[in-house]
Amino acid sequence: MSMIKSRLEAFSDGVLAIIITIMVLEMKVPHGENVAVLKPLLPIFLSYILSFSYIGIYWNNHHHMLHATKKISGGVLWANLHLLFWLSLLPFVTGWMGENHFAALPTALYGLVLFMAAIAYWILAHRIIAVEGPESLLAKAIGPDWKGGISVILYALAIPLAFYKQSLSQLIYVSVALMWVIPDTRIERTLIQNEP
Amino acid sequence: MSMIKSRLEAFSDGVLAIIITIMVLEMKVPHGENVAVLKPLLPIFLSYILSFSYIGIYWNNHHHMLHATKKISGGVLWANLHLLFWLSLLPFVTGWMGENHFAALPTALYGLVLFMAAIAYWILAHRIIAVEGPESLLAKAIGPDWKGGISVILYALAIPLAFYKQSLSQLIYVSVALMWVIPDTRIERTLIQNEP
Amino acid sequence: MSMIKSRLEAFSDGVLAIIITIMVLEMKVPHGENVAVLKPLLPIFLSYILSFSYIGIYWNNHHHMLHATKKISGGVLWANLHLLFWLSLLPFVTGWMGENHFAALPTALYGLVLFMAAIAYWILAHRIIAVEGPESLLAKAIGPDWKGGISVILYALAIPLAFYKQSLSQLIYVSVALMWVIPDTRIERTLIQNEP
Amino acid sequence: MSMIKSRLEAFSDGVLAIIITIMVLEMKVPHGENVAVLKPLLPIFLSYILSFSYIGIYWNNHHHMLHATKKISGGVLWANLHLLFWLSLLPFVTGWMGENHFAALPTALYGLVLFMAAIAYWILAHRIIAVEGPESLLAKAIGPDWKGGISVILYALAIPLAFYKQSLSQLIYVSVALMWVIPDTRIERTLIQNEP
Repeated sequence: MSMIKSRLEAFSDGVLAIIITIMVLEMKVPHGENVAVLKPLLPIFLSYILSFSYIGIYWNNHHHMLHATKKISGGVLWANLHLLFWLSLLPFVTGWMGENHFAALPTALYGLVLFMAAIAYWILAHRIIAVEGPESLLAKAIGPDWKGGISVILYALAIPLAFYKQSLSQLIYVSVALMWVIPDTRIERTLIQNEP
Repeated sequence: MSMIKSRLEAFSDGVLAIIITIMVLEMKVPHGENVAVLKPLLPIFLSYILSFSYIGIYWNNHHHMLHATKKISGGVLWANLHLLFWLSLLPFVTGWMGENHFAALPTALYGLVLFMAAIAYWILAHRIIAVEGPESLLAKAIGPDWKGGISVILYALAIPLAFYKQSLSQLIYVSVALMWVIPDTRIERTLIQNEP
Repeated sequence: MSMIKSRLEAFSDGVLAIIITIMVLEMKVPHGENVAVLKPLLPIFLSYILSFSYIGIYWNNHHHMLHATKKISGGVLWANLHLLFWLSLLPFVTGWMGENHFAALPTALYGLVLFMAAIAYWILAHRIIAVEGPESLLAKAIGPDWKGGISVILYALAIPLAFYKQSLSQLIYVSVALMWVIPDTRIERTLIQNEP
Repeated sequence: MSMIKSRLEAFSDGVLAIIITIMVLEMKVPHGENVAVLKPLLPIFLSYILSFSYIGIYWNNHHHMLHATKKISGGVLWANLHLLFWLSLLPFVTGWMGENHFAALPTALYGLVLFMAAIAYWILAHRIIAVEGPESLLAKAIGPDWKGGISVILYALAIPLAFYKQSLSQLIYVSVALMWVIPDTRIERTLIQNEP
């Protein structure tokens, strides 16, 4: 395994592991020991589940994309940091959306961060293809990335929709997440890994 | 070592390392410099020791299970994230149980998180076996996992018990932890690792 | 890959990943759901972008330097920790500068931390060269490090300038960051990594 | 490199990287932009430097010890977690000592955590030797560990001394740290690492 690629992965894994874990800190330990003190935490908990799933999806996709990658350039390193930047804002918008019971503006901002992260992922994929070449394994594997494209369009719709009817935006965020998770867990072909 | 498996381990290690460390942040630095300000921290400290042990046990078991694993599927990746999700709630319930001096509801919720994590671990083990095959080294190594089974039953008992007598639930949590730690530290057969 | 070097990298990656991620915690989730509550967060957000870029630059340079390194001494380990120490102060000065809308003293202190980190990086590079020898690949690759030198001089200028006109110091911090990021993303030569 | 050992290292690196970094969170970003608001942070900053050095020393020693280790047992895994447990308390006692301007009780408790961590390190070393055998490279390398022994004795002295004259305890903590750092940075023999 090339060193630079392994450090890119290790650094990304570290950042994603921290993002996924510090989000739980937004669920502040309440004062009191009855069910009533837990109730205001419910929307924060729900938004935590949503964001946890999104970080999981990004980790998963990131990892498959880099698995097929052979060469790394300076541009790829920065495109990767750009993606991590938008994902690092997820704990903030998750907490804000949860604390305000999925109000319009926080819901729209949540969608904006998802939108920017999806764009950043697209840039990263294309910087890698630019280095690997259009005939590379990766370019073929990504192909016409319809799932990524649909996600971006749906996020773009969800942002203005939040000011009209928030629940529709929430429905979009949940549906996009399910669209990524379900086929992944069902997938029959295992990625057989033999020890070298 | 296969790359995908190594990233699964690296990501899990990162998340577990962060969970185990941010739990200590629940022990807020007190104002004042005498013994009296430390006293209210004692139950938080005790629950920290308990949760630290549980994360240690999970890290340990996770690591043995993956050591014997050869193939990773999409389902395994998500089963692993599902386990990390429940474990990521441990800092929250640890803080809540500690701050409320092991009251009934926080004690029951603590048990629920342990219960769900144990179920998630069981799902992960069986997703791996489904990929590896019933004749695999792993399937034989796990065998009829009586220790895991007993733990799940005991957690299930401890949840309702907390509303009757909390100290019994606490006793169960401590006993299950000891059941996992003690044989592990006593084990005579060393896992001899030769450099490749 | 030598083990000691790989652990030095892993530890540094871990610390840098945590620094870059905990900085976002300075953007406290606001109470209220309208645009007005986001406004005071704008300077904190801008200083977050700046510091995120700086940690990215350091991670990038650190990683290229160690890629060309073969031998590690005790002095190198400590020079590396010294660099991480100054970078670990970045979240603090970032938060302080952001919360005080880029006031004079926080701006100067931010420059001081950048200055000390640049000096620490220089020390690390020279400790590595001392071990590797003046004829090593690394010594030649670093050569007369004009970009590092210019950065140090500019930081040294920005510190007193902050008390005269803060915006000039800010301009310096942004310009130095761009000086590092832009050529890196444009670079044509890819660092071709072949699997071993 | 054996997988189990590498995960033990990766997990320990993760925990130590987080401990060293979250300690900086005890330096809360002050309100106000003048020198006066920084003054109360000075003792917290000084205790941060001290604890940063101690985590650096432990990381360094841990890494040398495991470098010479070939075999890992269940007992070693738990002895390692036991060490990490005591080190995870360092951010708490660092913050408490710093906030109370090095008062007697916090200073004594800081010494107690250092003492327990040193004992835990000793236990870890001897669990590893028990597995490796008395004729192993590691057993010879550790030999009669006079530096570890002196440190433990000095910590044991510093704890009661804190109630008599805190500055003496502080002097001991600083001296022990210097005793570990200085020879390490001066060391002439480089640990030459050849690519495998």
